Amino acid sequence: MIKETKFRSVLKSITWRFCATATTFSLVFLFTGKLDTAIKVGGIEVFLKMLIYFLHERVWGNVKFGRHEIQPFVIWITGLSSSGKTVLAEKVVEKLNAKDLKTEHLDGKTIRHLFPATGFTKFQVNEHIKRVGLLASRLESKGVFVVASFISPYEESREFVRDLCKNFIEVYVSTPVEVCEKRDHKSLYKRARKGEIKNLPGVDVTYEVPKNPDLTLDLSNQELEKNAEKVVRYIKKYL
Amino acid sequence: MIKETKFRSVLKSITWRFCATATTFSLVFLFTGKLDTAIKVGGIEVFLKMLIYFLHERVWGNVKFGRHEIQPFVIWITGLSSSGKTVLAEKVVEKLNAKDLKTEHLDGKTIRHLFPATGFTKFQVNEHIKRVGLLASRLESKGVFVVASFISPYEESREFVRDLCKNFIEVYVSTPVEVCEKRDHKSLYKRARKGEIKNLPGVDVTYEVPKNPDLTLDLSNQELEKNAEKVVRYIKKYL
Repeated sequence: MIKETKFRSVLKSITWRFCATATTFSLVFLFTGKLDTAIKVGGIEVFLKMLIYFLHERVWGNVKFGRHEIQPFVIWITGLSSSGKTVLAEKVVEKLNAKDLKTEHLDGKTIRHLFPATGFTKFQVNEHIKRVGLLASRLESKGVFVVASFISPYEESREFVRDLCKNFIEVYVSTPVEVCEKRDHKSLYKRARKGEIKNLPGVDVTYEVPKNPDLTLDLSNQELEKNAEKVVRYIKKYL
Repeated sequence: MIKETKFRSVLKSITWRFCATATTFSLVFLFTGKLDTAIKVGGIEVFLKMLIYFLHERVWGNVKFGRHEIQPFVIWITGLSSSGKTVLAEKVVEKLNAKDLKTEHLDGKTIRHLFPATGFTKFQVNEHIKRVGLLASRLESKGVFVVASFISPYEESREFVRDLCKNFIEVYVSTPVEVCEKRDHKSLYKRARKGEIKNLPGVDVTYEVPKNPDLTLDLSNQELEKNAEKVVRYIKKYL
């Protein structure tokens, strides 16, 4: 947050008024050749312009045209592991930043890294997602756009987050499990098939497919640019 | 976040230039009685003033004087139950809001209410506090002042939060346990003494007193105004 002190504003107003009136004074003197006329016009202008500027500001202050409040959004990206959530989120964040919007990316992997004790049972995952949802909603309430990329396999916690947020967009990344397993960026499918890890959605626990997602995007093709554009276009009417 | 469209700014510039030049034109005509002189001065002024305004802005753009970035703070208020944390936090929030700073109050009671499954063992409390710390640090990174009021009895999680935040101020509310127990706003001491609840800091588990708090405030006297002022004064040099 950058603030300008009152003193700076006062100084700036004075230097501007000096420049502006000196210009008027010079022009009048140039065209009339009369010093007293130039002094009179310049002298009255100093005060008159301040009054007129004030009135002009007051009138515009009552004109709503062209002024709108930007409502931030929570864009919640859900889908299986390796479905393309994080890369999609990064692309969306990039596009929002390019529009000069305050944006925060919350990602499953980085947040779990901070809280290694978070477990993977249905209860633990739901609690985890709900708390991330609180984080998202508080950021949203302060004017920050949030892009969240989490497997978030359970309806219960996704609905909890939706209720906490004001403008919640659910983006379901529907890349089929076969494609995800082939990618297997974190070797989770491999380890789950071997029985080394448990509770992997799509393998030994169900991923509850969103019932009414705002957007469904299949990222098998990895067309990130196009799909991120779809997300941004979806909220564009609010920007 | 309120934004003004480019079109509004353009329109406003045009109406202002019209008002300003019309004033100059009228003044010149009034003092010289010559229409052609008034037209010449006004006509040149339109363009000349835009150029001079532009140069004036460029010069000021390079002047740092009077412009400073506000660094938000995380004010972490820790202390026993009924020690006066929440009311102190509310007073601090009030004071920061009065300075037109974006502020968020995170309070132990309201957040636990959202997550009724959060337990009270040392492990569970630490995890809870760490997650609140993440929330605080993310808000801080987006320019929001955070005032957090939590018993937060354990050094481990308080230090975790300190490390996450950029500007972390630890305020230890040192109201003695006897005073807190006498107040007992939530009847927690009563229930703990009866054995109905467990893990109440100051009764059956230790409250780890902060080793190096930035501020220590005894709220036995309930002098909220004075103590909140101390907190604000502490960070004032950064505001």
